[in-house]
Amino acid sequence: MEITENSRYGSDQRERVINPELFGLISGGLMIDTIIWEDRQKTNHQEAASCVHILDQTKLPLETVYLECTHWEQVADAISRMCIRGAPAIGVAAAMGVALGAQGSKAEDFSELSKELEVICQGLSKTRPTAVNLFWALDKMRRAAESMGNLTIAQIKERLRDKAVQMWQEDIDICRRIGKHGADLIPEGASILTHCNAGALATAGYGTALGVVRAAHSQGKNIRVYADETRPFLQGARLTAWELHQEGIPVTLITDNMAGHFMSRGKISVIVVGADRIAANGDVANKIGTYTVAVLARENGIPFYVAAPRSTLDLSLSSGADIPIEERDPNEVTHFHGYPIAPAGVVAAHPAFDVTPARYVTAIITEDGISRPPYNESLAK
Amino acid sequence: MEITENSRYGSDQRERVINPELFGLISGGLMIDTIIWEDRQKTNHQEAASCVHILDQTKLPLETVYLECTHWEQVADAISRMCIRGAPAIGVAAAMGVALGAQGSKAEDFSELSKELEVICQGLSKTRPTAVNLFWALDKMRRAAESMGNLTIAQIKERLRDKAVQMWQEDIDICRRIGKHGADLIPEGASILTHCNAGALATAGYGTALGVVRAAHSQGKNIRVYADETRPFLQGARLTAWELHQEGIPVTLITDNMAGHFMSRGKISVIVVGADRIAANGDVANKIGTYTVAVLARENGIPFYVAAPRSTLDLSLSSGADIPIEERDPNEVTHFHGYPIAPAGVVAAHPAFDVTPARYVTAIITEDGISRPPYNESLAK
Repeated sequence: MEITENSRYGSDQRERVINPELFGLISGGLMIDTIIWEDRQKTNHQEAASCVHILDQTKLPLETVYLECTHWEQVADAISRMCIRGAPAIGVAAAMGVALGAQGSKAEDFSELSKELEVICQGLSKTRPTAVNLFWALDKMRRAAESMGNLTIAQIKERLRDKAVQMWQEDIDICRRIGKHGADLIPEGASILTHCNAGALATAGYGTALGVVRAAHSQGKNIRVYADETRPFLQGARLTAWELHQEGIPVTLITDNMAGHFMSRGKISVIVVGADRIAANGDVANKIGTYTVAVLARENGIPFYVAAPRSTLDLSLSSGADIPIEERDPNEVTHFHGYPIAPAGVVAAHPAFDVTPARYVTAIITEDGISRPPYNESLAK
Repeated sequence: MEITENSRYGSDQRERVINPELFGLISGGLMIDTIIWEDRQKTNHQEAASCVHILDQTKLPLETVYLECTHWEQVADAISRMCIRGAPAIGVAAAMGVALGAQGSKAEDFSELSKELEVICQGLSKTRPTAVNLFWALDKMRRAAESMGNLTIAQIKERLRDKAVQMWQEDIDICRRIGKHGADLIPEGASILTHCNAGALATAGYGTALGVVRAAHSQGKNIRVYADETRPFLQGARLTAWELHQEGIPVTLITDNMAGHFMSRGKISVIVVGADRIAANGDVANKIGTYTVAVLARENGIPFYVAAPRSTLDLSLSSGADIPIEERDPNEVTHFHGYPIAPAGVVAAHPAFDVTPARYVTAIITEDGISRPPYNESLAK
């Protein structure tokens, strides 16, 4: 990957607007990259250093701003504040965070570096609890580092950087395979309801649920997407509608509470959502409201598909009851862009995810194909 | 009802902040009146005239502003723009609109006045299509006027004013009776989920669904309300949370897409909502999202109650399929207080209501008592 405008960067400049075209198109047709790794060369003005550019999704669609992270703590902060979100994207960001932390290390031997990496992994692991891809990515990086005891510090730093970039590139490939498998489930003329954003922005590129949509669209199928706006963060309105609108895939934005109405009126033919963690029995944790969509789907006889990479499977958990559900700040419910929408002092709740029991899930689409119930058997394969 | 500060009013002043205490407390414990009829005496500064004060609910909870309507067209506009909303409140506003229009008439005989009233009724009837209380109220006013052929114009104006004020007062009484009947269905310690605002603000006072909540609370029951925020207008966040918070009834605000999560976790023991129109078979049109709540309730074995005055019944319709569903401006979905939350140019849908089939409705609470299935029989009584 090439970054052509290094000279424009100042190391103290954490937030800036960039022209995404300068970064090349690596995300499979999207005009915008979710996350970018940059190797900075030594110049007269700065030391050699690495930088992770993270598209600040809290500002979309009104502003396209990249956060410039030169320390792993900035990556952790970007994950915590949902500047980057979506299980696969969080995984890639965490891997890049570890690699970035390694680059910045002053450790002089393997033991010292290992201790630093453990601190970094611990720090990144505390950012968000539900998406298992975060822990999966940290585990991969941790194991990779552990196997490098015979290398020099410089070599380890380079290998960890390569590993993170490889996971980023693989994620795009995985999404394309998910899309290909999933597209077979989308009939010509389908109206596809989706919840939240499981798109290019939720991954390194292309998307999981929206990867299925993109693949069906690129096969020439005449489809329309109904996008739940997905309160309180409005990922559907701000991100899903934006991605699809940019690519000319027909999309209708609705509030979350309209999904049932359109299902009951026969307007929705299929549902595809992403996932943040899937237990061994097929229970699916995903953005708050997914359970509701699934119940409505079954009530109306509409297939409900979950699209996610294998890295979202957590076969160590026998059911969704064991998946930790993140509780976020209630102010994210009571305020909109700093503007209060509820009376001062009112109590609000903000569970960020819910669990959809496997009995509502028609099939799970991974890069390896389509899994159907009973999931204890099909997912184990 | 007494208005004590007439001297503060200027007839050209359509919007102003008033101290609600000056108007007396007529809404059953609420500090704020939804709608107020004022008879203005002739003074040195102004002619004798009438005025309808409508609390502008689009500005709550941040501002308490009353619209001052001296012409029926202003009342119609306030209904259209949802400054006053909620089926029973719309009915009262429409009745006051007719009375206000009559006061302003220059008609010299009954025939002329009748024609003017018909224009007024037609105009008011076009404001919103779904809540049947609007048409019910207009019909009542029309019939009242038709029976007054033997009275003078001045007498007719006075009688129509009395009729509208009577309907307003009766609405509060009806709500209290609904509350009393419904409270019997609320167990001690209940967590009550409600959608939208079927409160004092949706009626002349006290509320339907929130009337049930208020009555249970005043019986000393230890209850908590979960209020769906109710996108896109946020009646739950802005109005229901505000009403309950003011009165010290415990309330937790949630986004619409959290309701299913809390039901599945056993946090909700009973659901009470209002209605905009109920067909003879018990199908219920209510704020968009109500159908979803009802499906989730049945899936989780939670009773789903509808609280509404008899004036919300439309026995002329055999089922909910015949209820007209208002389609509102999609900009109300894509913008929040003028701030865009979706990319420019994205298509959005905005059905303002949905229909909950009677099979999901555990019981319907009216001022006459509790109706249970089969509704074709119980409602006809």
